[in-house]
Amino acid sequence: MPTDARAEDFRRRLDHAAEATEAALDALLGPAALPGEITRPARLLEAMRYSTLGGGKRLRPFLVIESARLFGVEGASALRTACALEMIHCYSLVHDDLPAMDDDDLRRGRPTCHKAFDEATAILAGDGLLTYAFDVVADPATHDDARVRANLVLALARAAGLGGMVGGQALDLAAETAATPLTQAETLRMQAMKTGALLRFAVDAGALLGAASPAQAAAMARYGDALGAAFQIADDILDAEGDTAALGKRAGKDAERGKATLVGLLGLDAARARCDQLVNDAVAALRDTGKGDAAGVLVEAAQFVAARRN
Amino acid sequence: MPTDARAEDFRRRLDHAAEATEAALDALLGPAALPGEITRPARLLEAMRYSTLGGGKRLRPFLVIESARLFGVEGASALRTACALEMIHCYSLVHDDLPAMDDDDLRRGRPTCHKAFDEATAILAGDGLLTYAFDVVADPATHDDARVRANLVLALARAAGLGGMVGGQALDLAAETAATPLTQAETLRMQAMKTGALLRFAVDAGALLGAASPAQAAAMARYGDALGAAFQIADDILDAEGDTAALGKRAGKDAERGKATLVGLLGLDAARARCDQLVNDAVAALRDTGKGDAAGVLVEAAQFVAARRN
Repeated sequence: MPTDARAEDFRRRLDHAAEATEAALDALLGPAALPGEITRPARLLEAMRYSTLGGGKRLRPFLVIESARLFGVEGASALRTACALEMIHCYSLVHDDLPAMDDDDLRRGRPTCHKAFDEATAILAGDGLLTYAFDVVADPATHDDARVRANLVLALARAAGLGGMVGGQALDLAAETAATPLTQAETLRMQAMKTGALLRFAVDAGALLGAASPAQAAAMARYGDALGAAFQIADDILDAEGDTAALGKRAGKDAERGKATLVGLLGLDAARARCDQLVNDAVAALRDTGKGDAAGVLVEAAQFVAARRN
Repeated sequence: MPTDARAEDFRRRLDHAAEATEAALDALLGPAALPGEITRPARLLEAMRYSTLGGGKRLRPFLVIESARLFGVEGASALRTACALEMIHCYSLVHDDLPAMDDDDLRRGRPTCHKAFDEATAILAGDGLLTYAFDVVADPATHDDARVRANLVLALARAAGLGGMVGGQALDLAAETAATPLTQAETLRMQAMKTGALLRFAVDAGALLGAASPAQAAAMARYGDALGAAFQIADDILDAEGDTAALGKRAGKDAERGKATLVGLLGLDAARARCDQLVNDAVAALRDTGKGDAAGVLVEAAQFVAARRN
């Protein structure tokens, strides 16, 4: 496929995944999601919907959907897994925005959950989304094979937990008040946990859903790690350079808070060069899946992640 | 077995379950729990241990262990499921104690997690415990059969989520500031979600682990519902009557805050009578499991829950 057509195909698929995810999340968080007898905690459900619907590029769902497609799986299996991952991503934003954490008022150009509702509701909305994600994955509607469901739960819990996202956030907060700044190795490790682990899960999930061979699964894992690292550097560059309006959240806050970033450690030029190298690594890993042109959309995804402007 | 011997047997088993749970939680949250490569978020892990170890009657783990034993399952399967449930119970206490929620300084006679650490750490410790619970249940070490693991994840997520504990907490908080107090039916429903759902899961888990027949599983569910309701009334009575030293948390706070309780709605005597009736219901449900004397320890558990003084 020529370069322009590939880029166009990527954009079309990204939009399609975002629309499908939005509709599926809307249904999963709709009135039918709670069985008839249950008293509906209306305000909590509203806060969960507010924090999940109507925003974002849906990059993680897209990666689940396209990784699963690469291994022959489409439809509800991929989409439900994508929604579960997005719920966990959204819960983490709700909790990270809390006054006791990053204390942010703005997210995706709207008031953060605790500003639009209140702190107690934001804490519970995050807890509810995190819990519901595992409900969605473990449900037989996600996959016929219970081993696949249990493996998805395990991988998602590890990506989101103490050794992944939650642990990375704790290391990031600790670094803000530490006597000595994080080294480059520590920063990379923290970012791999905080941001990388969920992105890595997205592509691991595709391999799990599609029963990829061990070699293919390992190649997808390398792709996911490289893409996750590129994503984080691009994020750091955007925060250093971006403006609040384009980002839909406050820019420049990393430096202000003394957050550990690769831009701070390496400077902008070296950070950009490293980001380019990671895209090359991601593309090389995809080659090892043996899927040829079918992996083209994931090549585009790696380039998109590194070059994004918001 | 004579009454005294049964009570003694119950106490011995309750203590044994508490010791086994403490040791298993200590191992699950020990250094070996994080694979070698991972940077340890030391303070977060410490907060998770602080919030989980060294306290509590471990009633929920005991119920998992004894319900599983009733259906022929012992050892790691029951103990790991018990630990996962206890992690979710402990996470809920950490988040409920936060300033934005119940704003409590004291829990089990010690400073609450956000007092001993800080609010951000307490939020993340709760998130980490909730996530880790699903990791533990989904791990093949919990059960050979992936269907059982996936079903446990599903049941646990539903008990803990929007239609269960988290939803109940939201309804409880909403009731504090509502224009009209909750009716009796609404109070019962809120309590069944907030407190009852996890206790019900404990006994459902035993039936799931032991592949109980549908009729037996239904009987266990009825037992769990009755026991959960009795537990909550006993809790309300304790809060109305108890003293802070014996409870290890502040007494009298329900009335102070205008919380919806059955004691407030019915008065102490009628609440006590209702609690006794629920114990009878629980015992009748156990009879329907067809397990005879083997269920004696769970009969004692229902009586213990209703009569407890802290």
